[in-house]
Amino acid sequence: MTAVKKIAVLTSGGDSQGMNAALRAVVRSGLYYGLEVYGIQRGYQGLLENDIIKMDLRSVGDIIQRGGTILRSARSAEFKTPEGQQKGADVLNQHGIDGLVVIGGDGSYQGANKLSKLGIKTMGLPGTIDNDISFTDYTIGFDTAVSVVVDAVNKLRDTMSSHARSSVVEVMGRHCGDIALHAGLASGAETILVPEVEFNLDEVAERLRENFAKGKRHSIIIVAEGVGRGEDVVSKLKECHASIDARVTVLGHIQRGGAPTPFDRNLASRLGDFAVRSLINGESDKGCGIIKGELVLTDIDKVVNTKKEFDRELYDLALRLSQ
Amino acid sequence: MTAVKKIAVLTSGGDSQGMNAALRAVVRSGLYYGLEVYGIQRGYQGLLENDIIKMDLRSVGDIIQRGGTILRSARSAEFKTPEGQQKGADVLNQHGIDGLVVIGGDGSYQGANKLSKLGIKTMGLPGTIDNDISFTDYTIGFDTAVSVVVDAVNKLRDTMSSHARSSVVEVMGRHCGDIALHAGLASGAETILVPEVEFNLDEVAERLRENFAKGKRHSIIIVAEGVGRGEDVVSKLKECHASIDARVTVLGHIQRGGAPTPFDRNLASRLGDFAVRSLINGESDKGCGIIKGELVLTDIDKVVNTKKEFDRELYDLALRLSQ
Amino acid sequence: MTAVKKIAVLTSGGDSQGMNAALRAVVRSGLYYGLEVYGIQRGYQGLLENDIIKMDLRSVGDIIQRGGTILRSARSAEFKTPEGQQKGADVLNQHGIDGLVVIGGDGSYQGANKLSKLGIKTMGLPGTIDNDISFTDYTIGFDTAVSVVVDAVNKLRDTMSSHARSSVVEVMGRHCGDIALHAGLASGAETILVPEVEFNLDEVAERLRENFAKGKRHSIIIVAEGVGRGEDVVSKLKECHASIDARVTVLGHIQRGGAPTPFDRNLASRLGDFAVRSLINGESDKGCGIIKGELVLTDIDKVVNTKKEFDRELYDLALRLSQ
Amino acid sequence: MTAVKKIAVLTSGGDSQGMNAALRAVVRSGLYYGLEVYGIQRGYQGLLENDIIKMDLRSVGDIIQRGGTILRSARSAEFKTPEGQQKGADVLNQHGIDGLVVIGGDGSYQGANKLSKLGIKTMGLPGTIDNDISFTDYTIGFDTAVSVVVDAVNKLRDTMSSHARSSVVEVMGRHCGDIALHAGLASGAETILVPEVEFNLDEVAERLRENFAKGKRHSIIIVAEGVGRGEDVVSKLKECHASIDARVTVLGHIQRGGAPTPFDRNLASRLGDFAVRSLINGESDKGCGIIKGELVLTDIDKVVNTKKEFDRELYDLALRLSQ
Repeated sequence: MTAVKKIAVLTSGGDSQGMNAALRAVVRSGLYYGLEVYGIQRGYQGLLENDIIKMDLRSVGDIIQRGGTILRSARSAEFKTPEGQQKGADVLNQHGIDGLVVIGGDGSYQGANKLSKLGIKTMGLPGTIDNDISFTDYTIGFDTAVSVVVDAVNKLRDTMSSHARSSVVEVMGRHCGDIALHAGLASGAETILVPEVEFNLDEVAERLRENFAKGKRHSIIIVAEGVGRGEDVVSKLKECHASIDARVTVLGHIQRGGAPTPFDRNLASRLGDFAVRSLINGESDKGCGIIKGELVLTDIDKVVNTKKEFDRELYDLALRLSQ
Repeated sequence: MTAVKKIAVLTSGGDSQGMNAALRAVVRSGLYYGLEVYGIQRGYQGLLENDIIKMDLRSVGDIIQRGGTILRSARSAEFKTPEGQQKGADVLNQHGIDGLVVIGGDGSYQGANKLSKLGIKTMGLPGTIDNDISFTDYTIGFDTAVSVVVDAVNKLRDTMSSHARSSVVEVMGRHCGDIALHAGLASGAETILVPEVEFNLDEVAERLRENFAKGKRHSIIIVAEGVGRGEDVVSKLKECHASIDARVTVLGHIQRGGAPTPFDRNLASRLGDFAVRSLINGESDKGCGIIKGELVLTDIDKVVNTKKEFDRELYDLALRLSQ
Repeated sequence: MTAVKKIAVLTSGGDSQGMNAALRAVVRSGLYYGLEVYGIQRGYQGLLENDIIKMDLRSVGDIIQRGGTILRSARSAEFKTPEGQQKGADVLNQHGIDGLVVIGGDGSYQGANKLSKLGIKTMGLPGTIDNDISFTDYTIGFDTAVSVVVDAVNKLRDTMSSHARSSVVEVMGRHCGDIALHAGLASGAETILVPEVEFNLDEVAERLRENFAKGKRHSIIIVAEGVGRGEDVVSKLKECHASIDARVTVLGHIQRGGAPTPFDRNLASRLGDFAVRSLINGESDKGCGIIKGELVLTDIDKVVNTKKEFDRELYDLALRLSQ
Repeated sequence: MTAVKKIAVLTSGGDSQGMNAALRAVVRSGLYYGLEVYGIQRGYQGLLENDIIKMDLRSVGDIIQRGGTILRSARSAEFKTPEGQQKGADVLNQHGIDGLVVIGGDGSYQGANKLSKLGIKTMGLPGTIDNDISFTDYTIGFDTAVSVVVDAVNKLRDTMSSHARSSVVEVMGRHCGDIALHAGLASGAETILVPEVEFNLDEVAERLRENFAKGKRHSIIIVAEGVGRGEDVVSKLKECHASIDARVTVLGHIQRGGAPTPFDRNLASRLGDFAVRSLINGESDKGCGIIKGELVLTDIDKVVNTKKEFDRELYDLALRLSQ
């Protein structure tokens, strides 16, 4: 006996690489365990508009390697109201859908939480490049976003090294510096500016000068958007007389694109399958995550109300190794 | 009998992918034909500082695939003066160097022209990503730069398509829209703004609206920096009520990096070899180029004083195909 | 007045990267010039089975960057018979289709030739990675295939260089060594074995030994499949006492995949548009090509009966530069 | 007080991506903590030949992104003898080197174990693409090797899908199927043949036929070399009447190359730093690993005598999702 018979899946909020791999896992695991599976297009807005399609094995064929989300995503002001949420639950009930998997970030989780209170069994999957969801070590898309940044920095190094200059790269991360941190460590960036660690641009400029004096031929400064615009960082460093390239690289939404890395695909596959099995086992209102290699469930309330911890040790390692 | 016995090579101005492949071709062809070959580090500035090293077969081993330039590049105010140029010629004469291959853009060519008037046999190789040197269909680095842009646009499409939005990408090209044009055609961009073609942002906004009405799910607008900043284009399009993503992608110097494409490596190899053979044959003060598949020499004076023609037919094709 | 009103397009034979970009150009140019456009699925076999769909602007949206062909391809024994060809012409006539663009290699061209004799206006586009079609400098897919090979050799170099070894890579090309030649030049391969140039494995082994003696730390040998299997080359080189890695890399069909390079996309776009314009202008039974930068038409008979010339000069350059 | 004052580092056995990042971490952490650091070239053979260089901050500049190993690697028959090992210890003692970090696989670990018994403090870092070292969840290079395979399969899918065929890819892994498993899951392979799981090719052929009947348009079969050659698998599947592409892809040593992924660079950075800190703390004869996110030390004896467990659950998930 399974606790759910018909489930649906939607993607919501900003898309991330690996969402399609997660969708595929939800659909195919659902079918494997004998459930009916539906796809809701354009997130909660599509739910309100009854934009729902039946999924079969082939609906998710040949998508594991694609960025974006075949179900698309959209914002929905209406779904933020209690009336909208009730309407969403009604639409699901009309279809006889008793379980819902939501793939997205914070806002998406909150929607799942509301629906669970209206009688729908829900599961949240962490789909966002920012890695800013707690109770999971990695979000789906984070590894790929880091790869995109590191690939860009590799390209910059070629030209920086030829001209003995420093260069600023602005990456995503309003409240969470994880992209900056992991990409900074992996690309040997000298300076990593994140919202979680205070810094002083005078000292940054001083460090740049020292490193060039020690023979360094180029220097990369990674700036998470949460601490300000790359352009402003350049202006201030120039005032501090650092020898810096005026041209900032702003990676923008390309950080959300590209084929997902194998790491993200496999993470998404494991989490998608886990979400389905958890619904079948009668769980609801939970966020799915992976912590130290283990699949875990956490109350959505707790997930959205806990700020993710910043890995200060890794940050210090990055600086130690980029002398 | 060869017209030169000892030749040198330098890279100057902004670096481009394929400069190393060109260096390798100059050095190895030179050695193959029995010449002594020297490398001048950091462009004309290094020449003035006598920063010159002897090159052998191994000096250019394992570099064909690397971006940047192993000889590095630098600006030199001094070399722009007649005194500086004379000093440069003197340094070359002291080494007994009678031929010089310069890899770079416009400014680099002008330096070669000056030195040729002071008795050094010179050849210019078109090394710049902008494709803004005349009398060659392609400059070394252009194909790779276009690839970098197209790869970024591919990534953007994933996320744009998931959200039904338009997005602006700012690419290099102050006076020459070739990167924008070729990358725009290859990535199916709806709008390509270049310095060579007048445009009206109201019409651009209108076209975006029409295309969405016709069912297009996303739209890419490529802006060559020569027409203005991507950010300003977004602001104005918003005033025209286009549904556009506020986040601009500014690719900056990553367009100069990355492993050169096979096309650029082979172009660089052919041109480098051709420069050496031309020096040996007694030619001087010439720019080397490839026009409709044929290697050609053109007086440097003529090269630097002729504006490259814009391929309006290709531009029209790009628009025709991106409906 | 246009010479055709309804056209169809099909892809046939082995697929190549850029076929989708060519399809897109045929469809959108056709629509732009006021034609009706149809897509025939699975090549000539689909034609016989009347597997034909109407194409609109959106049918070819978001495909310019995809490898393979959305119309798919297949072999057809039946279409090789006169009866099959007549049946194909009949199907086209039933639909009122008076023009056909065929994208593929030699066999595909021959089919177009037969249909043209049965009253259908036809155009051939060179879609094959092998670059083995004459009267065009480049076939659609060739540049991408070369990139795939060069990317693989880059990876090999990392490990070869760490171990001071030589390595053999087997690439496609039964009768035409162009992939081997262009990839070999671009990747600095020491040895390039192609069907068009005789060679002696004793001398190859001798050259390997000499190069290592001169300080080379690794060596790449590229073998076009037309001269034999990579595995057999390794065995014979071992008998000649060369220090060679026993593990051969056989790239196989990955040479046909991957996102097409910008070069291939733009080539495909130009040729696809050209094919449509040529049909409109009353041309038929022609292969479209690009020779020294110019779009040209050649009688299909002549195309299929002329062997492509091998660029011996480029081959010699490759060897000269890989000392 | 630190337990060591002068340390050396070497890379041994087959190289893997991320070895350079590990080297960089060992050198820079060592210097940061006030140690002298030496690099031994060409593994244990270089140790016997006293091929040792002093490392400073710049020796490891600009290498984090490079595949291979700047210290190179080699086999050493002599070092496998007790006399060789004593000689190795003597060389280290002559230099006053009291700590050694060895980066490599099984054989490399055994060498470290021998040296530790001769009075040298040693640490092993798991540097191999095969993921076949126990007491660490991931080896350095594994994630990149999986990426290389998955990238190749992506390319294959393009062409397989156009022709409705199945294709076989042979990947590395003599005793350990982890590359096949992780790449297979990430690329949606229908069949994954590994040494750890028994299989029957009749059933594989049957499954292929069923999947095509269910509408699958292509199928990928990943074969770890430990179960046999891809070529032989194709022959047998053909005997079972499966519709399969005769052309096998054998990725060979390209699986060892390419820029390391950010995951591998960060893993290598953490492990390299950890090895140095462990030596400083007086530890010796230990393998460094990361288990469920935590850095751990394990006696080398235990590491080399424990077979890595195969993740059967992940294997079953891969099959469940590839219907």
